[in-house]
Amino acid sequence: MTTKLNPQWIVGFVDGEGCFNLDAHIKKDMKWKVQLQPEFTVVQNEIDLQILYALKEYFGCGTVTVNRTDKSGTRWQFRVKSITELTEKIIPFFEEHSLKTKKKIEFQSFRTICLQMKAKYHLNSLKNFLEIVDQGTQLRVRLRPKAKSVKSTKLDEQIACLRAKLLSFTL
Amino acid sequence: MTTKLNPQWIVGFVDGEGCFNLDAHIKKDMKWKVQLQPEFTVVQNEIDLQILYALKEYFGCGTVTVNRTDKSGTRWQFRVKSITELTEKIIPFFEEHSLKTKKKIEFQSFRTICLQMKAKYHLNSLKNFLEIVDQGTQLRVRLRPKAKSVKSTKLDEQIACLRAKLLSFTL
Repeated sequence: MTTKLNPQWIVGFVDGEGCFNLDAHIKKDMKWKVQLQPEFTVVQNEIDLQILYALKEYFGCGTVTVNRTDKSGTRWQFRVKSITELTEKIIPFFEEHSLKTKKKIEFQSFRTICLQMKAKYHLNSLKNFLEIVDQGTQLRVRLRPKAKSVKSTKLDEQIACLRAKLLSFTL
Repeated sequence: MTTKLNPQWIVGFVDGEGCFNLDAHIKKDMKWKVQLQPEFTVVQNEIDLQILYALKEYFGCGTVTVNRTDKSGTRWQFRVKSITELTEKIIPFFEEHSLKTKKKIEFQSFRTICLQMKAKYHLNSLKNFLEIVDQGTQLRVRLRPKAKSVKSTKLDEQIACLRAKLLSFTL
């Protein structure tokens, strides 16, 4: 039997354990060769897998899959990636039940990104696309204020190319 | 103005971020030269310091102090250590508002330890004292299932001496 959750319990748990993020990865058939993917995620150790299924049941969307396995065991994730489910189920929930920690500010940026993407704002122009990329970067920076710099990847190179392209339009 | 908290939000947040622990340290004027100190702790980054003050106000007990400062910033803690406050305020709250994750099992062990210590069970005999020590060790093991072994400390040596003493009584 799935654990029954109370909305305020969910808000408290997400204030502690939830993550609002904009993932980006190379996808050659996309307009700018980069796919932007907003995602709401809660990760738990295997011992609390039932909580992730309870969140899936409560929201009526998302998936429960392995997040990673290492020497300290297997971690699982509840994740919602669909723009429709994010804008119709996850965002309205956190609009009604307000987060209390810094995650509230992250949620507000995440909400803006999702609503813009639902309206296809990022597909209208390269300027708009890069604007969303920058909002996503700020979201990650807020999540990990002292994140180590990472090596340049194909994704970084493609974003840099797009920025150069936009600059050449506007010069 | 302090943030107002809802009991279910607190349960969700503690399911994610809370810690029930039995600290032990050398104290030469104690009966067995070891002081056992149950503690309920919630640690947050400085940006969410207001949440810790809100918990302090809600429970009407505990302290908010620096937990640690390192290169990623300052972390703060809300902590309750008084046996009276633990048994009269913290434990009744989590008896009424049930935790949903594995922390519920940790809370139940913690509750047993606190109630036994309030009744001075650990002062009645060396056997009882070591029984509480072992319950506390299990609590820490559950919290950190793959915790690295740590170097033997004065505390470990004193506990080992007490175990040897108990054994010599019973032989």
